Amino acid sequence: MKYKIIFSYDGSHYKGYQIQEEHETVQGKLQHALTAICKEEVKVHASGRTDAGVHAKHQVAHFETSLDISRVDMKNAINAMLPKDIFIRDCKRVSERFHARYDVISKKYQYMINTGEYNPILKDYIYQYNKELDVELMQQALDILTGTHDFTAFTVGELKDGDNVRKLFSATIDVKGDLLVINLVGNGFLRYMVRYIVGMLLKVGTHKLSLEQVQMILDARDRELYFGSAEACGLYLADVRY
Amino acid sequence: MKYKIIFSYDGSHYKGYQIQEEHETVQGKLQHALTAICKEEVKVHASGRTDAGVHAKHQVAHFETSLDISRVDMKNAINAMLPKDIFIRDCKRVSERFHARYDVISKKYQYMINTGEYNPILKDYIYQYNKELDVELMQQALDILTGTHDFTAFTVGELKDGDNVRKLFSATIDVKGDLLVINLVGNGFLRYMVRYIVGMLLKVGTHKLSLEQVQMILDARDRELYFGSAEACGLYLADVRY
Repeated sequence: MKYKIIFSYDGSHYKGYQIQEEHETVQGKLQHALTAICKEEVKVHASGRTDAGVHAKHQVAHFETSLDISRVDMKNAINAMLPKDIFIRDCKRVSERFHARYDVISKKYQYMINTGEYNPILKDYIYQYNKELDVELMQQALDILTGTHDFTAFTVGELKDGDNVRKLFSATIDVKGDLLVINLVGNGFLRYMVRYIVGMLLKVGTHKLSLEQVQMILDARDRELYFGSAEACGLYLADVRY
Repeated sequence: MKYKIIFSYDGSHYKGYQIQEEHETVQGKLQHALTAICKEEVKVHASGRTDAGVHAKHQVAHFETSLDISRVDMKNAINAMLPKDIFIRDCKRVSERFHARYDVISKKYQYMINTGEYNPILKDYIYQYNKELDVELMQQALDILTGTHDFTAFTVGELKDGDNVRKLFSATIDVKGDLLVINLVGNGFLRYMVRYIVGMLLKVGTHKLSLEQVQMILDARDRELYFGSAEACGLYLADVRY
């Protein structure tokens, strides 16, 4: 039996999604719960990893087991075994052909920035920038990135021709008082890509980086001298479509 | 010199506001910071206590010290010494006559209830009720409590004539999608009063308690058989006026 789960988690206290021997991880918690429920070793395959401190509103994974129970029973059984900071929102039976990672059509990430006064209550859930930003210019920088590009400048690791081409379907900023919500929808995201894009936006929003420089960095596939990655705490995996 | 501070905190990891020998408390952190800055023992007097797990968006306190520095320097010095879950929003010099507790004219508390799906990301910041509530009936119950009443039914401890009379200036519910925000403004709040009021509202909102029973409980000054107190995590001290 193959099951698909949609789940959300608070990443604050985990060393990321992917299982690690020595650390608490979301995958570790899920597999521990499922192995106990199914009474056999269960491997969980997610749509992709999230880094330490990154949250998920809508993450998707699949797993296979010989245990044949209803979707509701499976959902309730897993939730009963999970810690309070991970929650199975839905569980479905899927065909053998479904793969949570390879079948992804699009993903949505959100990044939350507090441009107002420091907020100690939401310090692990919104990036505390606490200064004004030029949202209009930031939106223009996002417009440059929208579409199909080689995003090598917005990831880590070696330059490999073609491998780092992704399509950003849309990139918008919602302003809710002092809160900025950056919404990025694409066919795939490279490692640290969202956090590097936000790092770039913080420079653009404070006029430390021009739109011409953004275009140049994208084309040259090198951001090294210009900006770093934004903090994990403001980042949410918000949707995965198949 | 007498200083007045306005501050906010995430109460999740504290055993309440008031200092205790064996536990981490907000007052403990403040006094520890101020004693180091002022190089003398400093006692902090807040507008009132908050219980373990309760948050504050706008708490007020005063303290006296011989250290004579500007309000901005004092604010920055304290923030530099405090952990990240407590933040001094403002610091002012006040007259010797000001008292953060005795001079309070009104206080505002907010209680946040998630009536939608369980949210693991905000589990320490919104009470996860996760079921629908009859908001209209809850508002009618709040209307019964609005005004000057003996709130003995909504606190703990012995019945003392007259001592438990408070005036609730306003009591309203804001609906923001699945989030209910209950706003209570009064000239003072008894111990657990807000959480007992919310405990009552949860019964009213699920039709387990009628408006007639609410009136009867208020008049009889006894809630014992009807409802308990709502969880601390949804509660915020939102304002204090002088």
